[in-house]
Amino acid sequence: MKKLNTIPKEDGFRMPGEFEKHSGTYMIWPERTDNWRLGAKPAQKVFAEVASVIGKYEAMTMIVSKAQYSNARAMLPSYVRVVEMSNDDSWVRDCGATFLVNDKGNKRAVDWKFNAWGGLVDGLYFPWDSDDKIAQKMCELEGVDRYRLDDFILEGGSIHVDGEGTCMTTEECLLSAGRNSSMTKEEIEKTLCDYLNVEKVLWLPRGIYNDETNGHVDNMCTFVKPGVVALAWTEDENDPQYQRSVEAYEYLSNETDAKGRKLEIHKILTPSPILITKEESEGVDAVDGTLPREEGDRMAASYINYYVGNGFVAVPVFNDPNDAKAIEELKKLYPDRKIEPIYAREILLGGGNIHCITQQVPKGCSNE
Amino acid sequence: MKKLNTIPKEDGFRMPGEFEKHSGTYMIWPERTDNWRLGAKPAQKVFAEVASVIGKYEAMTMIVSKAQYSNARAMLPSYVRVVEMSNDDSWVRDCGATFLVNDKGNKRAVDWKFNAWGGLVDGLYFPWDSDDKIAQKMCELEGVDRYRLDDFILEGGSIHVDGEGTCMTTEECLLSAGRNSSMTKEEIEKTLCDYLNVEKVLWLPRGIYNDETNGHVDNMCTFVKPGVVALAWTEDENDPQYQRSVEAYEYLSNETDAKGRKLEIHKILTPSPILITKEESEGVDAVDGTLPREEGDRMAASYINYYVGNGFVAVPVFNDPNDAKAIEELKKLYPDRKIEPIYAREILLGGGNIHCITQQVPKGCSNE
Repeated sequence: MKKLNTIPKEDGFRMPGEFEKHSGTYMIWPERTDNWRLGAKPAQKVFAEVASVIGKYEAMTMIVSKAQYSNARAMLPSYVRVVEMSNDDSWVRDCGATFLVNDKGNKRAVDWKFNAWGGLVDGLYFPWDSDDKIAQKMCELEGVDRYRLDDFILEGGSIHVDGEGTCMTTEECLLSAGRNSSMTKEEIEKTLCDYLNVEKVLWLPRGIYNDETNGHVDNMCTFVKPGVVALAWTEDENDPQYQRSVEAYEYLSNETDAKGRKLEIHKILTPSPILITKEESEGVDAVDGTLPREEGDRMAASYINYYVGNGFVAVPVFNDPNDAKAIEELKKLYPDRKIEPIYAREILLGGGNIHCITQQVPKGCSNE
Repeated sequence: MKKLNTIPKEDGFRMPGEFEKHSGTYMIWPERTDNWRLGAKPAQKVFAEVASVIGKYEAMTMIVSKAQYSNARAMLPSYVRVVEMSNDDSWVRDCGATFLVNDKGNKRAVDWKFNAWGGLVDGLYFPWDSDDKIAQKMCELEGVDRYRLDDFILEGGSIHVDGEGTCMTTEECLLSAGRNSSMTKEEIEKTLCDYLNVEKVLWLPRGIYNDETNGHVDNMCTFVKPGVVALAWTEDENDPQYQRSVEAYEYLSNETDAKGRKLEIHKILTPSPILITKEESEGVDAVDGTLPREEGDRMAASYINYYVGNGFVAVPVFNDPNDAKAIEELKKLYPDRKIEPIYAREILLGGGNIHCITQQVPKGCSNE
């Protein structure tokens, strides 16, 4: 497949909204023992559950290292396709391809440069070269050409689009020191507009409190559909999350999207603060260069980190009283999709959630 | 994808003839420096040429290790799909999946046990566990279920089928000590009939002289179409190949296929004996457990090791006067296909030829 040097916007390719029709979903199997406790076995069980749920609705491909291939195959249902691919960790939202479509249903993808959420400034592990090849390898598997940006660092979890010209991101992440610090905000915005084929970028100030991704938008806010967003919220004024959510709400309330629409904002209460336990901390290998998982650290738990696919919404739940409220709210927001709650503490312990570990391939030509 | 425990013959799945329509072809990128001289660079050039030729006619997928991924991608044309897969060497004919179809155009595959052409008896390298996983991983990529034989060792190059109930093999290989020595000839024949869905097995006595595969049939004889075979031949009575070709000719002359047809036999002259040079031998790393490539060793050169695909025949040539004769004969045998000669000494130096490094995926449902 080709590496393209042109611009998606000029070529007529755009990133569709996640809620548009998919041809399938990719995930990466977790295994690194310096991030996932107890040899990654509890996480693998939950990843298998997520894949099993998604695979009931659309084609599901699990990327797996050579070492874990047989084990993943044994733990996954037969309807999940397992493909070998070397990787550094399991966040395909962030290192994977961002697929684009044009009006004819042809597909291409953006292959952003990946540096493990901050590179040598505040990246989460070293090295990350295998992860940086994942997007290219996904493109080869899917048979699509890719726009590779060797000079622009971005993770898929730091952006959302409405498919109608609007992108949403956070200043906390995209203006962070470990990514594109030599670029101005305007230059970064221009790059997003060119490569996602959008007209307007909404810049939330910050993401979820203590999110190790430097505040990825996909844990904080998402497009339910064009003109409608869901925002992580708390009513607890003493929670450091409170100010972050208020800022975002105020920003969004005063903005319009690319089509000039005011945004309808739905607040989704976060669960109560979730802290890493001693037992959980002790299950993780200490390795120099990898972010440690320390007892008492607050995790960036949010229901917003859900994944929308063909006919379903896979939602992380935490055994928290707010689980039921989030599910009820999402049922209203997605009346035509089945809400699939998945107990996701083990994913959260690794630093993200269901949206972070999934990547959609949009549907292309009608014969797919 | 599923591992099946039933029998293809009972399930209505058969191996099509190679000359039937393909949906694509797989190859594996060469890299082991104890088999391919000069760091495998000359072989890679020829593999790239073979893939480039085939890819003009049908979908071409190159399997590549993590280490060689970028290099293979750079050396191959963009229309060749490159997928990561760990491997021990590059003989996808032998370790790859044997694909089957049924009358509805559904596909499955046989995943034979692989032991590097003889295991601990006379295998060619150690270990071979990555190669033994190739068939399964191809099935996952293609989305087909597989019949895995944990108790039966076979390489795809040791069989040919006519797609109409006949299989052809050699006693030299299938009755060798390093494969299924605990089975009788009748038991082996029954396994071939069950898993390829054939009624009759033609047992040539031996393959090509000094063939390190224990005489694979795919270097010696092949089905041009049902009822018609091409056989490696020499007129030189002093060549140790002579007696082998005569035996095969006499055997085939006195046999009929599964449909009761007498076989039309076309003799294809082999090139003159080709020996490994000092320079070629010196370019290969010495590694314990790997068959050495020694100066003066005769290689098992044969034009029969060609590959037939959609509209083409890729034929190894050796810069030998018999090249032209082979090409002329194949033009007559395949009047509707383009004959594509490829100078293949570098493949031969690794122990096989074009047929050994290719594996077809037959066309299934009509919407492919």
